[in-house]
Amino acid sequence: CTVKPLQIKRPSIMVRDLKIKPVITARAEEAISGVARKMVDNNVNHLPVVDHADRLMGIVTSWDIAHAVAKDSRKLTEVMTKKVIVAMEDEPVELIARRIDKHEISGVPIVDRENRVKGMITAEDISRLICSQNNKEGGSK
Amino acid sequence: CTVKPLQIKRPSIMVRDLKIKPVITARAEEAISGVARKMVDNNVNHLPVVDHADRLMGIVTSWDIAHAVAKDSRKLTEVMTKKVIVAMEDEPVELIARRIDKHEISGVPIVDRENRVKGMITAEDISRLICSQNNKEGGSK
Ligand SMILES: C[S@+](CC[C@H](N)C(=O)[O-])C[C@H]1O[C@@H](n2cnc3c(N)ncnc32)[C@H](O)[C@@H]1O
Repeated sequence: CTVKPLQIKRPSIMVRDLKIKPVITARAEEAISGVARKMVDNNVNHLPVVDHADRLMGIVTSWDIAHAVAKDSRKLTEVMTKKVIVAMEDEPVELIARRIDKHEISGVPIVDRENRVKGMITAEDISRLICSQNNKEGGSK
Repeated sequence: CTVKPLQIKRPSIMVRDLKIKPVITARAEEAISGVARKMVDNNVNHLPVVDHADRLMGIVTSWDIAHAVAKDSRKLTEVMTKKVIVAMEDEPVELIARRIDKHEISGVPIVDRENRVKGMITAEDISRLICSQNNKEGGSK
Protein backbone atom coordinates (compact mmCIF):
# COMPACT_ATOMS: atom_id res chain seq x y z
CA CYS A 1 0.00 0.00 0.00
CA THR A 2 2.59 2.53 1.12
CA VAL A 3 5.04 1.66 -1.65
CA LYS A 4 2.72 2.83 -4.43
CA PRO A 5 4.37 6.25 -4.95
CA LEU A 6 7.47 4.40 -6.09
CA GLN A 7 5.77 3.23 -9.26
CA ILE A 8 6.47 6.64 -10.76
CA LYS A 9 9.56 6.24 -12.97
CA ARG A 10 12.67 8.08 -11.92
CA PRO A 11 16.37 7.20 -11.65
CA SER A 12 16.76 4.71 -8.82
CA ILE A 13 18.40 5.76 -5.60
CA MET A 14 20.80 3.10 -4.45
CA VAL A 15 21.28 2.00 -0.86
CA ARG A 16 24.86 3.30 -0.99
CA ASP A 17 23.55 6.80 -1.85
CA LEU A 18 21.73 7.03 1.46
CA LYS A 19 23.27 8.78 4.39
CA ILE A 20 23.93 5.60 6.34
CA LYS A 21 23.97 6.15 10.08
CA PRO A 22 26.46 4.35 12.30
CA VAL A 23 24.75 1.26 13.63
CA ILE A 24 24.63 -0.16 17.15
CA THR A 25 25.44 -3.88 17.03
CA ALA A 26 25.49 -6.74 19.50
CA ARG A 27 27.97 -9.60 19.81
CA ALA A 28 26.65 -13.16 19.88
CA GLU A 29 28.24 -13.82 23.26
CA GLU A 30 26.59 -10.81 24.95
CA ALA A 31 24.09 -11.41 27.76
CA ILE A 32 20.42 -10.76 26.99
CA SER A 33 20.28 -8.13 29.73
CA GLY A 34 23.17 -6.20 28.18
CA VAL A 35 21.53 -6.37 24.78
CA ALA A 36 18.25 -5.07 26.23
CA ARG A 37 20.16 -2.22 27.87
CA LYS A 38 21.83 -1.34 24.58
CA MET A 39 18.43 -1.15 22.86
CA VAL A 40 16.89 0.99 25.54
CA ASP A 41 19.88 3.31 25.99
CA ASN A 42 20.14 3.93 22.26
CA ASN A 43 16.41 3.92 21.65
CA VAL A 44 16.69 1.40 18.81
CA ASN A 45 14.56 -1.64 18.28
CA HIS A 46 16.89 -3.63 15.98
CA LEU A 47 20.42 -4.72 16.76
CA PRO A 48 22.35 -6.64 14.13
CA VAL A 49 24.39 -9.38 15.82
CA VAL A 50 27.95 -9.57 14.50
CA ASP A 51 31.14 -11.60 14.93
CA HIS A 52 34.60 -10.17 15.68
CA ALA A 53 34.98 -9.05 12.06
CA ASP A 54 31.63 -7.24 12.00
CA ARG A 55 30.11 -9.99 9.86
CA LEU A 56 26.35 -10.41 10.25
CA MET A 57 25.27 -13.45 12.29
CA GLY A 58 21.72 -12.51 13.20
CA ILE A 59 19.37 -9.77 14.31
CA VAL A 60 17.68 -9.14 17.63
CA THR A 61 14.66 -6.94 18.41
CA SER A 62 12.66 -6.18 21.55
CA TRP A 63 10.29 -8.90 20.40
CA ASP A 64 13.11 -11.44 20.76
CA ILE A 65 13.87 -10.06 24.22
CA ALA A 66 10.23 -10.75 25.14
CA HIS A 67 10.79 -14.29 23.80
CA ALA A 68 13.88 -14.68 25.96
CA VAL A 69 11.93 -13.57 29.03
CA ALA A 70 9.02 -15.86 28.14
CA LYS A 71 11.17 -18.95 27.91
CA ASP A 72 13.77 -17.83 30.43
CA SER A 73 16.56 -17.97 27.90
CA ARG A 74 19.84 -16.27 28.69
CA LYS A 75 21.64 -16.82 25.42
CA LEU A 76 21.35 -14.34 22.61
CA THR A 77 22.05 -17.03 20.02
CA GLU A 78 18.91 -18.87 21.20
CA VAL A 79 16.57 -15.97 20.56
CA MET A 80 18.12 -13.92 17.76
CA THR A 81 16.84 -14.43 14.22
CA LYS A 82 19.54 -16.12 12.22
CA LYS A 83 18.10 -15.91 8.72
CA VAL A 84 18.34 -12.16 8.30
CA ILE A 85 16.72 -10.23 5.47
CA VAL A 86 19.36 -7.71 4.36
CA ALA A 87 19.99 -4.86 1.94
CA MET A 88 23.10 -4.74 -0.25
CA GLU A 89 24.75 -1.41 -1.01
CA ASP A 90 24.27 -1.80 -4.75
CA GLU A 91 20.52 -2.44 -4.57
CA PRO A 92 17.92 0.24 -5.33
CA VAL A 93 16.07 1.60 -2.29
CA GLU A 94 12.82 0.78 -4.08
CA LEU A 95 13.63 -2.91 -3.98
CA ILE A 96 14.40 -2.69 -0.27
CA ALA A 97 11.06 -0.96 0.33
CA ARG A 98 9.29 -3.88 -1.31
CA ARG A 99 11.39 -6.40 0.57
CA ILE A 100 10.57 -4.77 3.91
CA ASP A 101 6.91 -4.67 2.97
CA LYS A 102 6.80 -8.26 1.77
CA HIS A 103 8.41 -9.67 4.88
CA GLU A 104 6.44 -7.36 7.17
CA ILE A 105 9.56 -6.25 8.99
CA SER A 106 10.47 -2.76 10.05
CA GLY A 107 14.11 -2.59 9.07
CA VAL A 108 17.05 -4.44 7.51
CA PRO A 109 20.81 -4.31 8.01
CA ILE A 110 22.91 -3.09 5.09
CA VAL A 111 25.79 -5.47 4.34
CA ASP A 112 28.69 -5.42 1.92
CA ARG A 113 29.87 -8.29 -0.29
CA GLU A 114 31.77 -9.80 2.66
CA ASN A 115 28.61 -9.80 4.78
CA ARG A 116 30.00 -7.02 6.97
CA VAL A 117 27.40 -4.75 8.54
CA LYS A 118 27.52 -1.18 7.20
CA GLY A 119 24.31 0.25 8.66
CA MET A 120 20.58 -0.18 9.09
CA ILE A 121 17.74 0.97 6.88
CA THR A 122 14.26 1.19 8.39
CA ALA A 123 10.77 1.47 6.94
CA GLU A 124 10.70 4.93 8.50
CA ASP A 125 13.89 6.01 6.65
CA ILE A 126 12.31 4.86 3.42
CA SER A 127 8.98 6.60 3.89
CA ARG A 128 10.80 9.79 4.85
CA LEU A 129 12.83 9.52 1.65
CA ILE A 130 9.77 8.93 -0.50
CA CYS A 131 7.91 11.79 1.14
CA SER A 132 10.70 14.26 0.47
CA GLN A 133 11.08 13.02 -3.11
CA ASN A 134 7.37 13.38 -3.83
CA ASN A 135 7.33 16.83 -2.31
CA LYS A 136 10.24 17.87 -4.49
CA GLU A 137 8.45 16.70 -7.61
CA GLY A 138 4.96 17.90 -6.79
CA GLY A 139 5.76 21.25 -5.31
CA SER A 140 8.26 23.44 -7.10
CA LYS A 141 6.30 26.52 -6.08
CA CYS B 1 2.89 10.24 4.13
CA THR B 2 1.00 6.98 4.47
CA VAL B 3 -2.23 8.68 5.58
CA LYS B 4 -2.59 10.66 2.33
CA PRO B 5 -5.11 8.34 0.65
CA LEU B 6 -7.54 9.29 3.38
CA GLN B 7 -7.78 12.83 2.08
CA ILE B 8 -10.18 11.60 -0.59
CA LYS B 9 -13.66 12.46 0.68
CA ARG B 10 -15.92 9.57 1.52
CA PRO B 11 -18.27 8.78 4.40
CA SER B 12 -16.16 8.17 7.50
CA ILE B 13 -15.82 4.68 8.88
CA MET B 14 -16.19 4.75 12.63
CA VAL B 15 -14.15 2.67 15.03
CA ARG B 16 -17.33 0.84 16.08
CA ASP B 17 -17.89 -0.26 12.44
CA LEU B 18 -14.63 -2.24 12.47
CA LYS B 19 -14.65 -5.93 13.15
CA ILE B 20 -13.12 -5.62 16.59
CA LYS B 21 -11.17 -8.72 17.58
CA PRO B 22 -11.23 -10.01 21.14
CA VAL B 23 -8.24 -8.52 22.90
CA ILE B 24 -5.63 -10.17 25.10
CA THR B 25 -5.11 -8.07 28.22
CA ALA B 26 -2.78 -8.18 31.20
CA ARG B 27 -3.48 -7.42 34.87
CA ALA B 28 -1.30 -4.94 36.72
CA GLU B 29 -0.27 -7.56 39.29
CA GLU B 30 0.99 -10.05 36.68
CA ALA B 31 4.69 -10.93 36.58
CA ILE B 32 6.74 -9.60 33.68
CA SER B 33 7.61 -13.15 32.63
CA GLY B 34 3.92 -14.09 32.40
CA VAL B 35 3.19 -10.98 30.37
CA ALA B 36 6.05 -11.78 28.00
CA ARG B 37 4.70 -15.31 27.61
CA LYS B 38 1.22 -13.96 26.83
CA MET B 39 2.67 -11.75 24.11
CA VAL B 40 4.69 -14.51 22.54
CA ASP B 41 1.97 -17.20 22.80
CA ASN B 42 -0.63 -14.93 21.23
CA ASN B 43 1.76 -13.28 18.83
CA VAL B 44 0.72 -9.77 19.86
CA ASN B 45 2.96 -6.88 20.64
CA HIS B 46 0.53 -4.73 22.66
CA LEU B 47 -1.27 -5.78 25.81
CA PRO B 48 -3.63 -3.29 27.41
CA VAL B 49 -3.28 -3.53 31.20
CA VAL B 50 -6.67 -3.58 32.94
CA ASP B 51 -8.16 -3.68 36.43
CA HIS B 52 -10.78 -6.19 37.67
CA ALA B 53 -13.53 -4.34 35.80
CA ASP B 54 -11.62 -4.31 32.50
CA ARG B 55 -10.84 -0.62 32.85
CA LEU B 56 -7.68 0.55 31.14
CA MET B 57 -4.73 1.21 33.44
CA GLY B 58 -1.81 1.12 31.02
CA ILE B 59 -0.28 -0.57 28.01
CA VAL B 60 2.73 -2.86 27.68
CA THR B 61 4.70 -3.80 24.56
CA SER B 62 7.83 -5.86 23.88
CA TRP B 63 9.72 -2.58 24.09
CA ASP B 64 8.69 -2.25 27.73
CA ILE B 65 9.73 -5.86 28.34
CA ALA B 66 13.20 -4.95 27.02
CA HIS B 67 13.13 -2.03 29.48
CA ALA B 68 12.26 -4.39 32.31
CA VAL B 69 15.16 -6.67 31.38
CA ALA B 70 17.52 -3.70 31.05
CA LYS B 71 16.77 -2.35 34.51
CA ASP B 72 15.99 -5.73 36.06
CA SER B 73 12.47 -4.69 36.96
CA ARG B 74 9.95 -7.37 37.96
CA LYS B 75 6.86 -5.21 38.30
CA LEU B 76 4.62 -4.55 35.35
CA THR B 77 3.46 -1.26 36.85
CA GLU B 78 7.06 -0.02 36.72
CA VAL B 79 7.46 -0.55 33.00
CA MET B 80 3.99 -0.21 31.48
CA THR B 81 3.05 3.10 29.86
CA LYS B 82 0.40 4.71 32.02
CA LYS B 83 -0.67 7.60 29.82
CA VAL B 84 -2.30 5.57 27.09
CA ILE B 85 -3.34 6.97 23.73
CA VAL B 86 -6.76 5.43 23.01
CA ALA B 87 -9.50 5.26 20.41
CA MET B 88 -13.19 5.78 21.26
CA GLU B 89 -15.85 3.80 19.46
CA ASP B 90 -17.55 6.92 18.07
CA GLU B 91 -14.39 8.32 16.48
CA PRO B 92 -13.62 8.04 12.75
CA VAL B 93 -10.87 5.58 11.84
CA GLU B 94 -9.19 8.37 9.90
CA LEU B 95 -8.64 10.32 13.11
CA ILE B 96 -7.15 7.25 14.78
CA ALA B 97 -4.77 6.79 11.84
CA ARG B 98 -3.50 10.34 12.35
CA ARG B 99 -3.27 9.87 16.10
CA ILE B 100 -1.20 6.69 15.72
CA ASP B 101 1.03 8.45 13.21
CA LYS B 102 1.49 11.54 15.35
CA HIS B 103 2.48 9.62 18.46
CA GLU B 104 4.67 7.15 16.56
CA ILE B 105 3.00 4.17 18.14
CA SER B 106 1.76 1.05 16.41
CA GLY B 107 -1.61 0.55 18.02
CA VAL B 108 -4.21 1.89 20.45
CA PRO B 109 -6.78 0.24 22.69
CA ILE B 110 -10.44 0.97 21.95
CA VAL B 111 -12.27 2.05 25.09
CA ASP B 112 -15.88 2.90 25.89
CA ARG B 113 -17.15 5.89 27.89
CA GLU B 114 -16.38 4.04 31.15
CA ASN B 115 -12.76 3.46 30.07
CA ARG B 116 -13.39 -0.26 29.61
CA VAL B 117 -11.25 -1.96 26.99
CA LYS B 118 -13.25 -3.18 23.99
CA GLY B 119 -10.45 -4.10 21.58
CA MET B 120 -7.25 -3.00 19.94
CA ILE B 121 -6.70 -1.22 16.65
CA THR B 122 -3.24 -1.39 15.11
CA ALA B 123 -1.49 0.58 12.38
CA GLU B 124 -1.55 -2.66 10.41
CA ASP B 125 -5.36 -2.98 10.72
CA ILE B 126 -5.69 0.57 9.44
CA SER B 127 -3.40 0.18 6.45
CA ARG B 128 -5.18 -3.03 5.50
CA LEU B 129 -8.49 -1.16 5.66
CA ILE B 130 -7.23 1.72 3.54
CA CYS B 131 -5.71 -0.66 1.00
CA SER B 132 -8.95 -2.59 0.55
CA GLN B 133 -10.95 0.66 0.32
CA ASN B 134 -8.65 2.10 -2.34
CA ASN B 135 -8.75 -1.12 -4.30
CA LYS B 136 -12.56 -1.11 -4.23
CA GLU B 137 -12.65 2.43 -5.60
CA GLY B 138 -9.88 2.15 -8.14
CA GLY B 139 -10.66 -1.19 -9.64
CA SER B 140 -14.25 -1.79 -10.78
CA LYS B 141 -12.89 -2.67 -14.26
C1 LIG C 1 7.90 2.06 19.81
S1 LIG C 1 7.08 3.02 21.00
C2 LIG C 1 8.24 4.21 21.32
C3 LIG C 1 7.75 5.46 20.77
C4 LIG C 1 8.26 6.67 21.52
N1 LIG C 1 7.99 7.79 20.64
C5 LIG C 1 9.72 6.59 21.86
O1 LIG C 1 10.55 7.04 21.04
O2 LIG C 1 10.06 6.10 22.93
C6 LIG C 1 7.12 2.03 22.40
C7 LIG C 1 6.47 2.66 23.59
O3 LIG C 1 5.21 3.13 23.24
C8 LIG C 1 4.27 2.75 24.24
N2 LIG C 1 2.97 2.65 23.62
C9 LIG C 1 2.54 1.77 22.72
N3 LIG C 1 1.25 1.97 22.42
C10 LIG C 1 0.86 3.05 23.14
C11 LIG C 1 -0.37 3.75 23.27
N4 LIG C 1 -1.45 3.40 22.60
N5 LIG C 1 -0.40 4.78 24.13
C12 LIG C 1 0.69 5.15 24.82
N6 LIG C 1 1.87 4.53 24.73
C13 LIG C 1 1.94 3.48 23.92
C14 LIG C 1 4.78 1.44 24.76
O4 LIG C 1 4.33 1.18 26.04
C15 LIG C 1 6.29 1.63 24.67
O5 LIG C 1 6.81 2.13 25.86
